[in-house]
Amino acid sequence: MAMLPRVARLREAELYRAAAALFNKQGYASTSMRQICRAMGIRESSLYHYIRSKEDLLYHICERSMFLSLEAIEPIVQLSSRSKLKLKRMIETHITTIAENSNEHSTMLKELRALSPRNQRRIIRLRDRYEALFRKVIADCVQEKVLRDTDVKIATLALLGMMNWLIHWYSPTGPMKSEEIARIFSGLFLKRAGR
Amino acid sequence: MAMLPRVARLREAELYRAAAALFNKQGYASTSMRQICRAMGIRESSLYHYIRSKEDLLYHICERSMFLSLEAIEPIVQLSSRSKLKLKRMIETHITTIAENSNEHSTMLKELRALSPRNQRRIIRLRDRYEALFRKVIADCVQEKVLRDTDVKIATLALLGMMNWLIHWYSPTGPMKSEEIARIFSGLFLKRAGR
Repeated sequence: MAMLPRVARLREAELYRAAAALFNKQGYASTSMRQICRAMGIRESSLYHYIRSKEDLLYHICERSMFLSLEAIEPIVQLSSRSKLKLKRMIETHITTIAENSNEHSTMLKELRALSPRNQRRIIRLRDRYEALFRKVIADCVQEKVLRDTDVKIATLALLGMMNWLIHWYSPTGPMKSEEIARIFSGLFLKRAGR
Repeated sequence: MAMLPRVARLREAELYRAAAALFNKQGYASTSMRQICRAMGIRESSLYHYIRSKEDLLYHICERSMFLSLEAIEPIVQLSSRSKLKLKRMIETHITTIAENSNEHSTMLKELRALSPRNQRRIIRLRDRYEALFRKVIADCVQEKVLRDTDVKIATLALLGMMNWLIHWYSPTGPMKSEEIARIFSGLFLKRAGR
């Protein structure tokens, strides 16, 4: 991403939001650049100040979604608190991040196959890095016996699946707040009587 | 679906398999009827013996995927065994059904938005029926104290999410069999020391 002045950067963020909303609603392949421009009230020629192509736009949405997630989770893993507390905060943060950026997150999860193989690999590397953070803390939880002894890799995929599935059912206008969902998920996943 | 002779029915099942494989690999919107015909080695005119349109094909794949799931789960719910045992068998059956029909299941989960509103509602009704089966048995598990006291609706979505997420990572050629994954998931979800 080239350095852009602040106004242009804000506009860029707006562009990702508008495009992700359309991609999530009607699918990447069925969304035209014209529709994205219409949603933003700009001309198609202006759009190319920010991005090179529709695939470039999809790539930036996916990358941004992963960067947001990594930036939110990495500081928690670095904390010196007990693993159970860390994992609880990670669950809460992951769910809040999805809830606040549901279109971007959903696009990243559903449209990976539409990226070029090279861009797919880049996003998968970011996902792997993210998954490894959860795997580490889950392994610590098993070690500290606040999580039952289990296959750490599969348990990590189970937890991420449980949380990511929110893209299929969560609504910000629904009866339950994301913090409440996080609390229930932590309760289901972690042993009740933790040390 | 009109009644078709047995050979035609077999051919129809093959058609759904071939189409679901393409839809899952490259997305519904990016798959042409021509590609589906090529994959099956038939002419486009022959295809229309079985289906009316591409959307009709997608609808039948989604419906079939839900029928397979319902047919597999409903008899377990009817059993007179203890709820913990029922839920364990439901988890195993759900995971095996996904693993064996991963393209169909994945298409049903990812491409719902491509269906007409009327067909979307039909599939959602089947999904709701399916979810209700899990919700009932999970509520019984809470009642019988083999599952911690929790919000049954959210716990059901958590379990279904955990399992359905397999479409993003499970491979039949991977190191872990679906039965083994089911065992780990049951262990994570249910209390270890059940009554």
